[in-house]
Amino acid sequence: MDRVTEQELSVWRLFIQTHSKIIEKIEGDLAEEKRVPLSTYDVLIELFEAPGRKLRLGDLTKKVVLTKSGLTRLVDRMEKEGLLKREKSEEDKRGAYAVLTEAGETELRRAWPVYAKGIKTYFAKPLEEADLQALNKALEVLRQTVED
Amino acid sequence: MDRVTEQELSVWRLFIQTHSKIIEKIEGDLAEEKRVPLSTYDVLIELFEAPGRKLRLGDLTKKVVLTKSGLTRLVDRMEKEGLLKREKSEEDKRGAYAVLTEAGETELRRAWPVYAKGIKTYFAKPLEEADLQALNKALEVLRQTVED
Repeated sequence: MDRVTEQELSVWRLFIQTHSKIIEKIEGDLAEEKRVPLSTYDVLIELFEAPGRKLRLGDLTKKVVLTKSGLTRLVDRMEKEGLLKREKSEEDKRGAYAVLTEAGETELRRAWPVYAKGIKTYFAKPLEEADLQALNKALEVLRQTVED
Repeated sequence: MDRVTEQELSVWRLFIQTHSKIIEKIEGDLAEEKRVPLSTYDVLIELFEAPGRKLRLGDLTKKVVLTKSGLTRLVDRMEKEGLLKREKSEEDKRGAYAVLTEAGETELRRAWPVYAKGIKTYFAKPLEEADLQALNKALEVLRQTVED
């Protein structure tokens, strides 16, 4: 295995730093507008898109993008806030479902415009069409590499 | 403000998903080799690179990339594990420093080869030179946008 070069390491650092900064900016906007944070949004959107608007906790962990560790704590907090409820599985014993509530759907819809504006402002708009295409191409290659 | 387009949203999703998957892969490798997780690595490297190998907690929060929220808990855990120690500031009252310990430096050095191999395998190697350049260019544009 070849060693990682200075240039590769520099692009990697830029990748994780830029990701972090954009997420931070969007989090700031959501907090300012008193909307749910991105980690909560991430759970809400996965539940919203799931059949029956519910997912087993194990499946939820696989799907969320921002908070893999600490997801149980996050789900607990969201349950307390009424954004989801837990439901026991009737078919088998393999643990509970998280189910989207109406309040959860409301918060999802309230957060989206702020989140969308952030994606536009900090990510899409600064990039020229060619940059966006190139970014897409590079990310597609990486996704194919890491997908099992 | 224009609305975010389908294509822009799709590249954004690819960006956060790919980031998440690569981080997950590297975390898996580190866990398998019984090395410190990336969040810990992130704190250790910032302390290692700081003058006197110490940082105020507030400055540490600004510098780390992976765990902004929950950093206090992480620092507590790392102190218990002996990877850093807290030191009161003598010059002023604005809170404590986190200081790298020898054990912390040892774990940093032990983790690096596994981390570096992950960067090579999941990020650098799959990309052709042109893709890496294009990615670098797009990320530079984004970094300039989000930096204050």
